[in-house]
Amino acid sequence: MNKIDHLGIAVADLTAASQRYQELGFAFHGSERVDEQGVTVAFFECGESHIELLEPTHDQSPIAKFLAKRGPGIHHLCVEVDDIEAALADYKSKGIQLINPEPVIGAGGCRVAFVHPRATEGVLLELKEKMK
Amino acid sequence: MNKIDHLGIAVADLTAASQRYQELGFAFHGSERVDEQGVTVAFFECGESHIELLEPTHDQSPIAKFLAKRGPGIHHLCVEVDDIEAALADYKSKGIQLINPEPVIGAGGCRVAFVHPRATEGVLLELKEKMK
Repeated sequence: MNKIDHLGIAVADLTAASQRYQELGFAFHGSERVDEQGVTVAFFECGESHIELLEPTHDQSPIAKFLAKRGPGIHHLCVEVDDIEAALADYKSKGIQLINPEPVIGAGGCRVAFVHPRATEGVLLELKEKMK
Repeated sequence: MNKIDHLGIAVADLTAASQRYQELGFAFHGSERVDEQGVTVAFFECGESHIELLEPTHDQSPIAKFLAKRGPGIHHLCVEVDDIEAALADYKSKGIQLINPEPVIGAGGCRVAFVHPRATEGVLLELKEKMK
């Protein structure tokens, strides 16, 4: 594990939430619409990591379902690895349950894969391969 | 905000959870019993941050209540600040709701304060003052 890449937080109103996170002292870094995930994302700086606020763009977005069930809050933890295929192969050899057995393309074109919360004490864990 | 200091994860069985986090690739850093908070904590390294697994030591521990209500998962986010009193004064001036209006002593003797999840989009946010 290189570092915490980002912490994803589900929010219903990205404008209001972004203002609040700036009031809390997190510097705004940028925003992006990721249609594959059904979210608009705003990034904030925190050392070598980012805070990602995620607002759903439609009702069938996983973030919309999370908000309907649990309300706003921490949705996932993303950690950076050097070699995502090596990490996934290692996890498979240990019987660790994966949502994505193979890497998929995430925000910014990075290769990512999610580990199942059942394998991580209830944490939706995203692996992200370091950009080369 | 200097960095993510740690991410606290509530678990029911610290021994099993610690083994799993090592299998996931997080290096074990140490453990500590914090009687004031009713928890035993195991720390794992992740870049400049730590992952903290928190097991309750008794039924009235806030972590025991969290587990009973929601099951294991991410409990809080802790960020490091240079001057916790300045940060709290700034938050008060902005009307940001605090759990601890004044710093309290946390694990390792650090000065910490929690911000109310209502003020942070459902995130239990801990400020921790940098050790001098």
